[in-house]
Amino acid sequence: MKHKRSERIVMMTEYLLKNPNKLIPLTYFVNKFNQAKSSISEDIYIIKTSFQDENIGNVITLSGVNGGVIFQPVLSDMSAKEIILEFINILKENNRLLAGGYIYLSDIIGNPNIMNKLGLLIANIYQNNEIDAVVTVASKGIPVAYAVASVLNKPVVIIRRDNKVTEGTTVAVNFVSGSTRKIETMILAKRSLKEGSKVLLVDDFLRGGGVMTGMRTLMQEFKAEVVGMAVLAECFDSGNIDSAEYTYLVRLSDINEFTGKFKVEEGNAINQLIKAREVKLENE
Amino acid sequence: MKHKRSERIVMMTEYLLKNPNKLIPLTYFVNKFNQAKSSISEDIYIIKTSFQDENIGNVITLSGVNGGVIFQPVLSDMSAKEIILEFINILKENNRLLAGGYIYLSDIIGNPNIMNKLGLLIANIYQNNEIDAVVTVASKGIPVAYAVASVLNKPVVIIRRDNKVTEGTTVAVNFVSGSTRKIETMILAKRSLKEGSKVLLVDDFLRGGGVMTGMRTLMQEFKAEVVGMAVLAECFDSGNIDSAEYTYLVRLSDINEFTGKFKVEEGNAINQLIKAREVKLENE
Repeated sequence: MKHKRSERIVMMTEYLLKNPNKLIPLTYFVNKFNQAKSSISEDIYIIKTSFQDENIGNVITLSGVNGGVIFQPVLSDMSAKEIILEFINILKENNRLLAGGYIYLSDIIGNPNIMNKLGLLIANIYQNNEIDAVVTVASKGIPVAYAVASVLNKPVVIIRRDNKVTEGTTVAVNFVSGSTRKIETMILAKRSLKEGSKVLLVDDFLRGGGVMTGMRTLMQEFKAEVVGMAVLAECFDSGNIDSAEYTYLVRLSDINEFTGKFKVEEGNAINQLIKAREVKLENE
Repeated sequence: MKHKRSERIVMMTEYLLKNPNKLIPLTYFVNKFNQAKSSISEDIYIIKTSFQDENIGNVITLSGVNGGVIFQPVLSDMSAKEIILEFINILKENNRLLAGGYIYLSDIIGNPNIMNKLGLLIANIYQNNEIDAVVTVASKGIPVAYAVASVLNKPVVIIRRDNKVTEGTTVAVNFVSGSTRKIETMILAKRSLKEGSKVLLVDDFLRGGGVMTGMRTLMQEFKAEVVGMAVLAECFDSGNIDSAEYTYLVRLSDINEFTGKFKVEEGNAINQLIKAREVKLENE
């Protein structure tokens, strides 16, 4: 059955959106719709311009034998800014300050809608890097990693913080928790990550930097190359990690347990996004 | 700027896909595109038929003052079957049997592409139920819960299994782990879940049923109504839970640590899906 252009466009739009950052050969659509390559190219052109007008992303066409199309979700600077402002506004509502200076984030992390937006923003910063896996630490980093990895079209690798890992040979490292100053352990099964992988480390919170340092140490054991680090929020000082090295969407400070108040301000994500685009342009 | 029909269709398709199970007033599109309601209705009709032809889902139009469109992802029985067969094939590859009769699932759970498919299947079974939250237990249930909740457009609530919960007042219950026969604890912050919520419980594995029973006990403390339970795989017998009550995509049995072999067969998900559709038809 032959489809009309308008129908093909709906189906192709869905397929591209479902497969971000993946090369789809033109022949896939040519065969699927039983249409000439020229018609399919015109369809794609319409989708491409609509995606641009609507700030959905780029549809990149590669010609040649290995040619095809790649959909790359792209956030405009304005959309990125809006996402961060929305995040800041949510952080300001309710009584989020918990005992010990912790900030209540579970409702935000549990909201797929918000997480997908924040993940899209982080993915945008790193999507032109070669990345084999998004690595995080259980349990609150998982939704963040998942949202980022869905856009990058890469697997998530989850480091555990308990010793209940039932996955064969494991590698464990100790780290000093930045907040409690206690020595803790993180552990990853050997088969979870190929040696020499390029990884993006993500977590919900950076508070002293102990967990992130632990993750980096563990990555060394896997001879992995850390391509980037990203967190939703950083808190206090970043300890022993240079803040130019990682992305944080917001910064929390002046946490006052007595009044229940704290300060939230924009992090360095927009700058990181602009920097990533400049690097991309230089390479083109 | 007025957009052509083909462009509007691309943009509306994207918007609907990004907002599953959410009522979008027609006026949203009327205002956005500065078009007559009749034109927008025609656009939606094209999207609706294309989604049907391609088995993407239903676009339901509600008329009246509170009218609008809802996109509901719908899996055909064939697509559901394909997803389960793909899952079974992945389970059969590699050496997945670990010491203690555990099955290695981390690579599957870490793959957003596979998880989104499995989540779509589970969501399809429960999307006509009234659900306030998808509840899971850290850490491997999280990606499953996330994939399901994204489709249902509902929040995820994560029960922890350690005592490092820094979220104010918590409720804890003890449960007997089905596999280790040890008494363990699960814990949830009071503010994470509203009393009287309707919840869908999900986890990666059901192995003796201890964790699921623990989750149900914990839900009682929150006066929550358990609308359904779903796991990716069940193993051995399901212990003290009636298997008619929950959904499992596959069943693992005959686990032989000596040969490293085990049996994988289809679970009850397809039946549950068919049953859910029958109930829906009866209610219409």
